[in-house]
Amino acid sequence: MTAPEELRGLVEAYLGELALTPELGGLEGSMRHALAGGGKRVRPVLCLATAEAAGAEPEAALPAAAALELVHNFSLVHDDLPALDDDAVRRGRASTWAEYGEAVAILAGDALLAEAVRLALSYPTPAVARELVQATLGMIGGQYLDITGAETDLAVLHRLKTGCLFSASIACALWVAEVPEREQAPWRAFVDEVGLLFQIVDDILDEDGYLLEHGREGARVLADEAAERAQARLAEVPADTSVLAGIVTGLAARTS
Amino acid sequence: MTAPEELRGLVEAYLGELALTPELGGLEGSMRHALAGGGKRVRPVLCLATAEAAGAEPEAALPAAAALELVHNFSLVHDDLPALDDDAVRRGRASTWAEYGEAVAILAGDALLAEAVRLALSYPTPAVARELVQATLGMIGGQYLDITGAETDLAVLHRLKTGCLFSASIACALWVAEVPEREQAPWRAFVDEVGLLFQIVDDILDEDGYLLEHGREGARVLADEAAERAQARLAEVPADTSVLAGIVTGLAARTS
Repeated sequence: MTAPEELRGLVEAYLGELALTPELGGLEGSMRHALAGGGKRVRPVLCLATAEAAGAEPEAALPAAAALELVHNFSLVHDDLPALDDDAVRRGRASTWAEYGEAVAILAGDALLAEAVRLALSYPTPAVARELVQATLGMIGGQYLDITGAETDLAVLHRLKTGCLFSASIACALWVAEVPEREQAPWRAFVDEVGLLFQIVDDILDEDGYLLEHGREGARVLADEAAERAQARLAEVPADTSVLAGIVTGLAARTS
Repeated sequence: MTAPEELRGLVEAYLGELALTPELGGLEGSMRHALAGGGKRVRPVLCLATAEAAGAEPEAALPAAAALELVHNFSLVHDDLPALDDDAVRRGRASTWAEYGEAVAILAGDALLAEAVRLALSYPTPAVARELVQATLGMIGGQYLDITGAETDLAVLHRLKTGCLFSASIACALWVAEVPEREQAPWRAFVDEVGLLFQIVDDILDEDGYLLEHGREGARVLADEAAERAQARLAEVPADTSVLAGIVTGLAARTS
C-alpha cells in the first residue's frame, strides 16, 4: 500500500505534466494558474488510495484523480468571480479572475470542467465520466443554493456542495478498479461519512456553517462522531483499507 | 426520411420535456430560459437527419441532439455575460444574465454543459460524449481567441468557434447509428464544408467576419462554393442523403 504523501506526489507530478487540449491555446496559462495553487489534493489522493485498496495500481486511477481535481478547481475559479463570492485571493495567491480578468476566468473554468470530462472519458467504461458528471451537477446545485441564500438545511447544502465530489472520488476509483456494482455498497456507505467529516472540519477551521450552528465544541463532537462512523464503515469493507483509515484520521485532526 | 421541419419538432418536444437533474433545484428556471429562446436548432436537426440517413431511428439520436443544443446554449449564456460580449438581449428576449443576474447565469451555463455531457453519456458507448467534449474544448479555445482579439486567421477562429460543434453534430449521430470508424471519413469531409457554409452565411447576415474581409459579393461567392463542395461531398456518402442535401440548400439560402 502506498502512503498518502506518496500518492499526493503522484497527483502533483501527473497534474504538472498533464497535456491540455492544444486548441485551448493561450487559455492554458490561466488554467495552470488555477491548478497550481496547491491545496491538499484530498479528492485525488482519496481516489488513488481507494483504487489501490480495491486492487488496482494507483497509477491506473491518475486520469480519474486528476479529473476530480480539475472539477474541484473549475468550481473554485467560478465561485471566486466577483458576481459570486468575489474573492481576489485563493490559497495566498491572486485568484484566477484577479490575475487574468473575469472573461478569461469564466472560460478557464469552463475549460477545466470540459478537460476533466475528457480525462474521465479516457477509460473504456463510461461509468467513470458518469460519476464525475452527476457529482458536478450536484455541486452546481449546491452552489446555487448557497448564493441564493435560501433557507436550506446545512446537511443538504453540504451534501451537494462538498459531499457529491467526495463520493465521486471513491466511486470513480471503484470503476477504475472494476469493482462490480453489487460490491460497491460498503464503500459508498463509507464515503458519505468522509464527505461530512471533511465539511464539518472545514467549517470549524473557517468558523462557518456547523461551527456557527453548533458552537466549537458541538461541531467538534459532530466531527469526531463522523470520523468514528467512517472508520466503522471502512472496517466493513473487505479489503486492506489501512491507508484510507490513516487518511480519515488525518482529515479529522487537520488544522488547515 | 423525415423532413427537417418534423425533425425540428422532435427536438423542440424533447427539449420541452427534458427532465433536468433534480439537485439543480431552482437553477432550472434560468436553464429553461436559455434553452427556450428558439433559434434554428440547426445542430440537433443535422444530428437527427444524419442519424436517420446512416440507418438509425431519428428518435435514437435525440439525447445526442439535445446535448449539442445544450452545449450551444451553454456557450451563448457565458458569451453574453458582461465580462465577455455584454449582450443583454438574445433572440429578442432578455439574455440569461439580464433576466437572472450574472451569478445565476454563470451557474446556469455550467449546468447546461454538465447536463449536456450527462445526456451524451446515456449511450452505451462513450464515443458520443467524447465527440461532444472535444468539440466543446475547441469551441472554448475559439472563444478565447475571439475575446483576446489576437491576430488570428478567420478560418482558424471559425473552425474552432463554430466548426467544431457542427462536426460533432454529424459525428455524434454516426456513433449513435453505429457507423464503424473506418466508414466515417466521407461523412466527416462533408461536415467540414457545412460548418464553413454556416459561418460565412452568418457573417453575411451579421455584416461581420467574412463580409468585412471579402465584401458582400466576395463572401457570397465563398458561401456558394462551400455549399457546392458540401453537396459534392454528400454525394459521395453511400446513403440516402436527400434530407441532408435539402438542409444544406436551406443553410445557403437562409436570410435569418
